[in-house]
Amino acid sequence: MYELNEANFEPGLEFASQLDAQDELAPFREAFAPTEPDLIYLDGNSLGCLPRRTVERLRVAVEKEWGGDLIRGWNAGWYRAPVRVGDKIGELLGAGPGQVVVGDSTSVNLFKLAMAALAMRPERQRIVSDVLNFPSDLYVLQGCCRLLGNRHQFFLAPSADGVTVEQSALLEAIDERTALVTLSHVTFKSGFMHNAAAVTERAHEVGAFVLWDLSHSAGAVRVDLDEWEADLAVGCTYKYLNGGPGAPAFLYVRSDLQGDLFSPIWGWFGQQSPFDFELDYRPKQGVARFLAGTPPILSLLAMESALDLSLEAGIERIRHKSVWLTSYLVYLVDTLLAPLGFALGSPRDPAHRGSHVSIRHPEGYRISRALIEEMKVLPDFRAPDNIRLGLAPLYTSYVEVWAAVERIQSVVTEGSYQHYAPDRLPVT
Amino acid sequence: MYELNEANFEPGLEFASQLDAQDELAPFREAFAPTEPDLIYLDGNSLGCLPRRTVERLRVAVEKEWGGDLIRGWNAGWYRAPVRVGDKIGELLGAGPGQVVVGDSTSVNLFKLAMAALAMRPERQRIVSDVLNFPSDLYVLQGCCRLLGNRHQFFLAPSADGVTVEQSALLEAIDERTALVTLSHVTFKSGFMHNAAAVTERAHEVGAFVLWDLSHSAGAVRVDLDEWEADLAVGCTYKYLNGGPGAPAFLYVRSDLQGDLFSPIWGWFGQQSPFDFELDYRPKQGVARFLAGTPPILSLLAMESALDLSLEAGIERIRHKSVWLTSYLVYLVDTLLAPLGFALGSPRDPAHRGSHVSIRHPEGYRISRALIEEMKVLPDFRAPDNIRLGLAPLYTSYVEVWAAVERIQSVVTEGSYQHYAPDRLPVT
Repeated sequence: MYELNEANFEPGLEFASQLDAQDELAPFREAFAPTEPDLIYLDGNSLGCLPRRTVERLRVAVEKEWGGDLIRGWNAGWYRAPVRVGDKIGELLGAGPGQVVVGDSTSVNLFKLAMAALAMRPERQRIVSDVLNFPSDLYVLQGCCRLLGNRHQFFLAPSADGVTVEQSALLEAIDERTALVTLSHVTFKSGFMHNAAAVTERAHEVGAFVLWDLSHSAGAVRVDLDEWEADLAVGCTYKYLNGGPGAPAFLYVRSDLQGDLFSPIWGWFGQQSPFDFELDYRPKQGVARFLAGTPPILSLLAMESALDLSLEAGIERIRHKSVWLTSYLVYLVDTLLAPLGFALGSPRDPAHRGSHVSIRHPEGYRISRALIEEMKVLPDFRAPDNIRLGLAPLYTSYVEVWAAVERIQSVVTEGSYQHYAPDRLPVT
Repeated sequence: MYELNEANFEPGLEFASQLDAQDELAPFREAFAPTEPDLIYLDGNSLGCLPRRTVERLRVAVEKEWGGDLIRGWNAGWYRAPVRVGDKIGELLGAGPGQVVVGDSTSVNLFKLAMAALAMRPERQRIVSDVLNFPSDLYVLQGCCRLLGNRHQFFLAPSADGVTVEQSALLEAIDERTALVTLSHVTFKSGFMHNAAAVTERAHEVGAFVLWDLSHSAGAVRVDLDEWEADLAVGCTYKYLNGGPGAPAFLYVRSDLQGDLFSPIWGWFGQQSPFDFELDYRPKQGVARFLAGTPPILSLLAMESALDLSLEAGIERIRHKSVWLTSYLVYLVDTLLAPLGFALGSPRDPAHRGSHVSIRHPEGYRISRALIEEMKVLPDFRAPDNIRLGLAPLYTSYVEVWAAVERIQSVVTEGSYQHYAPDRLPVT
């Protein structure tokens, strides 16, 4: 067994192949449907690939369960799916059973938990986040503040370099005025990873709630919600968990908080006895009180089947591979792309890095267009100059990392990116 | 062509077959996947059957779009799906384009629109609904009131018979104190249908908003949102629209209100330029500002394919058949089941009736168990004594209506229902 060691890294197909040969997770690549030949997909941090088993699971869900069982499908398994699948996700997040449920989108779940937490600290008016948080999360929080009479103030911890969040500023901002600290555990643009245990500890020292967005963490890095003593968390399932486009999101509420916190959205899936059809709401016991309406079962079951792959691989092995994939990419960026004008847009220390690596270049947008249109490399682009390269441990190979860097080199040295308009296309 | 006329109704297979033979929508039955042989499915008002085309549409969505297009699927069609599918649903609801979007559950959509409406009438403290409204809707409204400081009072219009809502009490309750009138257009238990135009007119006379829940209406009865001058509406798509279990719900905001109303949940799908990743929320123009997070695309595309069947059939023909299916069933109940102790639990006048018919019997629960377990009839049961028989115009035949009544007769006359425990099974 080759000892992984950054000092021994080499560029080249042969070396990358050696890394693949000793990759314990390499067999999982076969668990995914093949993409078009020669495509290098580096956007699993945005939408994970299709697991082969999901094709069959959905066929059964549609033809046998919906088409055959019809309404009986609810008792046969659908009704319990939000809790059942929540517990599976909990396993990947270091959360014991009964603390995670699935349903609604990340935005809606964030709204529910933020409103629940803010209601518990009515006298406090500070919300702490950071400038690298996913903007949709900030929008949701701004909406919460408007509902609550615009009496909260935001403190957004700064980032000097656009890559890392200034930890001292963040920790100092968490004070006795703070109702809620809410952060993306791994940030969407740079892949910066917070020290969640330290932030949580600081928040608890001053009696604030902490709400983690784990969208870029789940299925990619170690998350230890119970060990962190985190209060609340949300996250999506369509990135590293490969749940499919818009697959329903999860939410976590720590056991001992479940009796005191209330969802602002009181739907029948959060009702104690929904099929008694009583006219007055009585919340369920436990985390299921944070469910609202009927969840999208086909999307949910597709996601469940994908999730099992991450459970089989185990988060330890996933994280191990993620660290080495991203470290190898950082090495190649330093060695081969820096001379071409690229700068690393992600933390260099893997302890503060998730599973994607951003590389920055003044012509980043046009380079990303050329990669997509001509080079069969699919990254994504985040303004102003970040090309995000997502490395999904279940299916990204070291050879792909090497080949992607080679193709990026070629786009820049041959100048083919200059054929593309410099303006970003509007997404419609 | 046989003239449909209640005076000419007859019991019996031969007569029912004649009705099927002249049913213009009969060919649509072939558009649905076959169920188990001899099964009579009368729960399409709870979960619609599986359209054959949906199997293929989902296969393409999964294998080609997700598996093949990967992240490119968003630009290729997914991103616009909530608006595109919303406009199609609008066609079935008498709503011009740009007023309906799809995403989230009915509960979440109801929450968004109720909060938006209540924010427009801060000085008014009355919410008008009725005791036959779907309890989950009342739960959502109770949650809204709690968020707003418990300063609203509910007026629930009564029902003397558990079947119809007292219209005079309802209309009189809508007064200058009223912020919001919100009702199920067709109620879930009895199938009672409100006079939506009259309620809306009354609400507007006093400056109140009206929010319709169209879950039991969409794809079953005439809805004319624009003609009614309705303000707001929501509804699910998994009943008569056959969208699949938990398929995403829709919401309607009348054009001229869209600039003034704001969703309480500010997610990126409601943001003007979500891919600019600005830190401050700017709502989209139009109804799309009421979107929140990423919608469940697989469930949404499955639903879209099903929806096209209702559009092809046309709501006029659907409603026509629904009236005659339910009228024939009412006739059979009167003729054959009333002597066995059944009472009609739905309005007798089709002008006030949706597409399901409830029949009440002191042994209703056990009879429904026997129908399901022994007689291959799938209705559902709603306490205390209602067996709901949902007639879906796209696939329910007159022969099925006849055969179901025959099997109900047999369960009662042979006493086989007495083998079942009288207690309802808990739904777990």
